[in-house]
Amino acid sequence: MNWRLLSRLLSLLSLLVGASMFLSLPWAFPVFGVAVQFEQQGFLGIVLAMLICMAVAACLWYAGRGAQGTILHKEALAVVGLGWILAGILGSLPYLLSRTMRTPEIPMTVIDAFFESVSGFTTTGASVLTELENPSQIPKCVMFWRCFTHWLGGMGIIVLFVALLGHLGGGGKALMQREVPGPLNETVKPRVRETALAMWKIYVGLTLVLSIVFILEGMSPYDSLCHTFGTLATGGFSTYNRSAGHFESVTIEMTMIVFMIAAGTNFSLFYLLLNPPPKAKKIPWYRRAEVVYNEPEWRAFIFTILLVTVALTVNLLVSGTYRHFGEAIRHGLFTTVSIITTTGFGTEDFGQWSDFSRALLLLLMFAGGCAGSTAGGIKIIRFLLFAKIIRVETEKAFRPNVIRSLRLGRENLPDRLRQEVVVYFSLVLSLFVVSWMLLNTIEPDTLWQNGNDSLKAEKLIDCASAVASSLNNIGPGLGVLGPASNYSGFSQQGKFLLTILMLLGRLELFAILVLFFPSFWRNQ
Amino acid sequence: MNWRLLSRLLSLLSLLVGASMFLSLPWAFPVFGVAVQFEQQGFLGIVLAMLICMAVAACLWYAGRGAQGTILHKEALAVVGLGWILAGILGSLPYLLSRTMRTPEIPMTVIDAFFESVSGFTTTGASVLTELENPSQIPKCVMFWRCFTHWLGGMGIIVLFVALLGHLGGGGKALMQREVPGPLNETVKPRVRETALAMWKIYVGLTLVLSIVFILEGMSPYDSLCHTFGTLATGGFSTYNRSAGHFESVTIEMTMIVFMIAAGTNFSLFYLLLNPPPKAKKIPWYRRAEVVYNEPEWRAFIFTILLVTVALTVNLLVSGTYRHFGEAIRHGLFTTVSIITTTGFGTEDFGQWSDFSRALLLLLMFAGGCAGSTAGGIKIIRFLLFAKIIRVETEKAFRPNVIRSLRLGRENLPDRLRQEVVVYFSLVLSLFVVSWMLLNTIEPDTLWQNGNDSLKAEKLIDCASAVASSLNNIGPGLGVLGPASNYSGFSQQGKFLLTILMLLGRLELFAILVLFFPSFWRNQ
Repeated sequence: MNWRLLSRLLSLLSLLVGASMFLSLPWAFPVFGVAVQFEQQGFLGIVLAMLICMAVAACLWYAGRGAQGTILHKEALAVVGLGWILAGILGSLPYLLSRTMRTPEIPMTVIDAFFESVSGFTTTGASVLTELENPSQIPKCVMFWRCFTHWLGGMGIIVLFVALLGHLGGGGKALMQREVPGPLNETVKPRVRETALAMWKIYVGLTLVLSIVFILEGMSPYDSLCHTFGTLATGGFSTYNRSAGHFESVTIEMTMIVFMIAAGTNFSLFYLLLNPPPKAKKIPWYRRAEVVYNEPEWRAFIFTILLVTVALTVNLLVSGTYRHFGEAIRHGLFTTVSIITTTGFGTEDFGQWSDFSRALLLLLMFAGGCAGSTAGGIKIIRFLLFAKIIRVETEKAFRPNVIRSLRLGRENLPDRLRQEVVVYFSLVLSLFVVSWMLLNTIEPDTLWQNGNDSLKAEKLIDCASAVASSLNNIGPGLGVLGPASNYSGFSQQGKFLLTILMLLGRLELFAILVLFFPSFWRNQ
Repeated sequence: MNWRLLSRLLSLLSLLVGASMFLSLPWAFPVFGVAVQFEQQGFLGIVLAMLICMAVAACLWYAGRGAQGTILHKEALAVVGLGWILAGILGSLPYLLSRTMRTPEIPMTVIDAFFESVSGFTTTGASVLTELENPSQIPKCVMFWRCFTHWLGGMGIIVLFVALLGHLGGGGKALMQREVPGPLNETVKPRVRETALAMWKIYVGLTLVLSIVFILEGMSPYDSLCHTFGTLATGGFSTYNRSAGHFESVTIEMTMIVFMIAAGTNFSLFYLLLNPPPKAKKIPWYRRAEVVYNEPEWRAFIFTILLVTVALTVNLLVSGTYRHFGEAIRHGLFTTVSIITTTGFGTEDFGQWSDFSRALLLLLMFAGGCAGSTAGGIKIIRFLLFAKIIRVETEKAFRPNVIRSLRLGRENLPDRLRQEVVVYFSLVLSLFVVSWMLLNTIEPDTLWQNGNDSLKAEKLIDCASAVASSLNNIGPGLGVLGPASNYSGFSQQGKFLLTILMLLGRLELFAILVLFFPSFWRNQ
């Protein structure tokens, strides 16, 4: 392990986190019409947090003096794994130093703040805060930081790194490979830095467009920015207790649906649309959309959304949850898109829906968006490949000598994916089952007591949804964790477990798992 | 597909099933002290079922006239898959023709009988019958048939086939490979027929020993035989409503524990103990036991039993379910062994235990016994290999160029296992999740209504345990499916789904899955 290089890179990361806190400061002033009066505590808290980030950066820079060499596989994993944990810790400082209250008059603990910060960076959107709309409990500038962590984590802080610095040599590719989700990492440009820059340009472009659209639809600039971060990073933090349901506006919900789907799409598709390869240049722009439509993963993504929406809508009408078709399809579509893209915005408490709907949504939590998007979950492409692998393996049972290559669309995929996809699948499922049991054991029953009755079965289901929701970076769960309620009542040990799951889910397991391997740290 | 050969083999199978019904007939006479009076309906029902089996056998034999060729991969899969379905159908005839009652005065439907029959052959032991102790509802001779199906299915009817016929050429190996559980099929003898015979000899030997022990411990010959079948086949059908708890005897429970563990052990270990390789002959017999102890799978199996028993015992004492240490360890040990070996005998209703215990048992349902035993489940060896594969894959993330072979103990395992084990794992888990959702949807809420309250969360958990229990061939589940209650109240469509899961679990998926592939049936 090249410790000095590692230290230097982590120092740059701390600097980046500290610098981005700067953007939250203006909202402490009442000029922008958000804060009622100057939020002294919030302002000082964030300034102090920035200073600590700088100090950490300075120490790490000093520790890394004379760093040499390039980033190899090991260093890439360590930077991504440790970098995200460090960002989570530094990101929790504004909450702690501004004495943000979890519930009225109860300040956040260190674990609470770490949970909230990691939930932000990993674009999970699970929250322990209950009084979002009361600035005396949560300063507006801290709330802005909370939403901004989504935006930083969505496209990936390490990718931002690569885009800004770029002089990482061969290491940039290894870094991006560990941070950008999905089994394959196509690069749209021959050089890694250019790819990272192109991705961030598209991301910033979408952010500008959406925030203007939100303002035109009647949001304040503050709400518009916060909800843009939540939508495009598929995070799901809102500035209101009722989440997206607060606006009670079909237009805003439709806008969110469109942009959540965009955020769940592989960003290299946008790049291809905007910069078609030379051959395709002669094709008129509207024909280029065919390229996107013909992409097998994206098509499966849209098809899944349509299928689940129809199933939910029919079930919501039949079970009598909603009387009107319009209402059923509105909430059905919004919830489907919000869950599959792992955003977690809510318009209605789906924990109250029928058994079938709840089970379907619990399943959908594992789906996730496309590879190379900001969405979490297992990712559609892995499901497509998994189905193909199962077919091939079953066929092998009766035709042992036939060898088939793994194809998706017209492309032959590398053979190593066979093993990797199935391992990823079974690892996520095993992790889900083991963490479920663990959470169920370490969590006291208090939340699930209705008078003298203890609702044991409810607890089992709620814990399952909490684990699925954290591991797939969604946010809300079922029962006590519905979009209207949150993780505030969970025990400290339960929150810590869920925080680890969020990190595992965001970095697709391995960058965190290796940290527990002694042989990873040994010099060889 | 060689249809004629297939037809001829299935004809022999029908003959075998018909012939084995003959053994149930004596119990219809009061001579043996079981039946109070001559059970006319039961006797005639079984005779009629035998005649139908013979007729089916004759038809299939005629259809297969002039059969030629040997059994290849395709035929082996078809014989095992279709053979087990046929055995399930033929085995359901005695229930139907003797008008066995599901609940007082409500006769079994066709689906009920198929469920009970498949549950018997697959050694699941899930039952739809509620009045086991009332001979006017369920004739004693039919009940004997019910337990006897366990015994036939435990070691495998196709393996019995191979042992009896033996002139299948190269096909015998393919057949056994599909029916004997586990990823590896070592053959203890160079010739397949000899291996099959050796296995059946050990099985018959254990049966004789256990039935005599049970008689010495005070059971009637009838009860002794029925419970021997249930124990050694890891099935779990009992002749009493309270299952093994009926005897209220620690001695009988301890005997069952010992023999359940034996039945969950790889039968080739017994063979090695009895027929050591020439080199080992000079070693005294008590040193030979080391060979068994050094077998990694068996050691992990015993270690898991001890670990879970300790966890359960401590939890049962702490949660106050039992006051005395003796009681806690007695029920803890019995339940652990009963679940891990997928037997499903019960002494206590573990659905009433604490959350932790219930979740632990639900997890344990997936473990299963050793490969090459009569137990169901995923099998210990697959867990061992899975853990190794995950280690190797995680290491690959930071040492991409290191290639490691898959080892277990001192042996190098074939490379194809890497893919197979992980595929099996993820397929079982996906099947569990999808079937859970399906069962939850097609099953009406009626069973889970407490006055006006609908216990939705209870239903989700009970359905999960029903699916896990069927897929792993265990039998009892949680809640409404505890060892004291059963599947009687489930809907017909729910029972049918569970029946398919039992077959999938017993044959380790592929022999049933391929039947749904059109390309399997195409001639190529």
